Amino acid sequence: MPPFKTTYKISWADTDAAEVVHFSNYFRFFERAEEEMYQKLGFTFNDFIQKYNLWLPRVEALCKFKAPAKFGDILEISLTVDYIKEKSIKYIFTINKKENKQLIAEGYVILVAANKKLGKAVAIPKKFVQKLKTYKKIS
Amino acid sequence: MPPFKTTYKISWADTDAAEVVHFSNYFRFFERAEEEMYQKLGFTFNDFIQKYNLWLPRVEALCKFKAPAKFGDILEISLTVDYIKEKSIKYIFTINKKENKQLIAEGYVILVAANKKLGKAVAIPKKFVQKLKTYKKIS
Amino acid sequence: MPPFKTTYKISWADTDAAEVVHFSNYFRFFERAEEEMYQKLGFTFNDFIQKYNLWLPRVEALCKFKAPAKFGDILEISLTVDYIKEKSIKYIFTINKKENKQLIAEGYVILVAANKKLGKAVAIPKKFVQKLKTYKKIS
Amino acid sequence: MPPFKTTYKISWADTDAAEVVHFSNYFRFFERAEEEMYQKLGFTFNDFIQKYNLWLPRVEALCKFKAPAKFGDILEISLTVDYIKEKSIKYIFTINKKENKQLIAEGYVILVAANKKLGKAVAIPKKFVQKLKTYKKIS
Repeated sequence: MPPFKTTYKISWADTDAAEVVHFSNYFRFFERAEEEMYQKLGFTFNDFIQKYNLWLPRVEALCKFKAPAKFGDILEISLTVDYIKEKSIKYIFTINKKENKQLIAEGYVILVAANKKLGKAVAIPKKFVQKLKTYKKIS
Repeated sequence: MPPFKTTYKISWADTDAAEVVHFSNYFRFFERAEEEMYQKLGFTFNDFIQKYNLWLPRVEALCKFKAPAKFGDILEISLTVDYIKEKSIKYIFTINKKENKQLIAEGYVILVAANKKLGKAVAIPKKFVQKLKTYKKIS
Repeated sequence: MPPFKTTYKISWADTDAAEVVHFSNYFRFFERAEEEMYQKLGFTFNDFIQKYNLWLPRVEALCKFKAPAKFGDILEISLTVDYIKEKSIKYIFTINKKENKQLIAEGYVILVAANKKLGKAVAIPKKFVQKLKTYKKIS
Repeated sequence: MPPFKTTYKISWADTDAAEVVHFSNYFRFFERAEEEMYQKLGFTFNDFIQKYNLWLPRVEALCKFKAPAKFGDILEISLTVDYIKEKSIKYIFTINKKENKQLIAEGYVILVAANKKLGKAVAIPKKFVQKLKTYKKIS
């Protein structure tokens, strides 16, 4: 399946004194793409938080910064599901500049399903796993 | 009484592409000074959240930006309690550059005590009001 | 003329531990609406920064927080030009929840045109003033 | 040599709706420790930017999130220089909760020296390399 894709336009508040996006913000762009993918798949915040009583805390995140992005640039963010294990998921992200397709950043985020009360990792709901396969990388 | 004072050193992530602190961050510096004042007065997060079952949501905030601050500048933040009403408090803030005492920003924040369950304004705990008078503006 | 309108969907990173949008972020939402208005009017970043050699630093900002907004809420942001003086502009913002039109926040930002080299306020370019009238409040 | 150590107190704005520090902020805490190490070594912003005409852009960053940190927690951040190559540096970070030494996060950042005009990686200034050895990991 093709990856989930979305766009994000860089706001002034995303930049730093080097006149480029602050490196920490790419992790926020990753997360924004993830949120939009959930919406596309029909999952709402309430599904995770209230129905399943879950958080989705991140356990690991990496980003390689390939080229700077500037205020006003439109970024194309691609999200692929790398793997879905019993209790964890790995998403892979690629960010390109829309204008010329230049690679800006790439990375991954590993997250777990955590029961809100127990505060520990639990099995990811089956229905959610099923939907996520839509953007699963072909291995 | 003299105002509560604290310092804050500007980090790279606080800046924007104009090579100065992003204007929204001054409101975060205000809040940081407020947090440190609570600590100085012996109030912990748990006092508000768990013991009193309160949030302290902001209902109004203003800042006048007088001069730019840059990466590495040390800011002196002064906090004075302007008024304490039954359900609301107004704090006044002044931010100067430590190096030369230049005025950087000044403003205020008005907040209320809100019951977490009811989600509406309630009376500010007496014990807290008593402590806050330490930094009350002499009218 | 009707105000400039745009929408913004609240991301997880916009929230704080009270499970609502951190108050400082409303000022970022104001700025995002301003950026999108410039784009709508045909002004690019390069027009200000390179062609006119200008920054647009904020000199004052106020926000009244009327109701909390939460993760996933879609906000409608309206921008009206309150006044255009020789060297300064005042924008008025209103933020409503798209779902039920509830008023979330309202406020203003006053900014000046500042020459990048001189670092002081200068006249706002005529061509820009002309375009801004599109969203001028009817007085 | 022992690592460089500093502390950081978590502010309300650092948290998200799960009532813990937003994962992207750990990268900002890493950067803050880096800035303070430079200061400790006697390097100022002007040394990099003006004297050497350099930025220090990040090319890769990773963080493993081991346990959540909450509002008001004091974090101890340790920084060790993993390697110094001709044009790049790798810093390793460990973040513990001060109160009980619990491991909160660990990760690394790789950065390069980039000439501001050329926009490409150049040799790291010898004098800077010399100082950085203070916090070099014993291999």
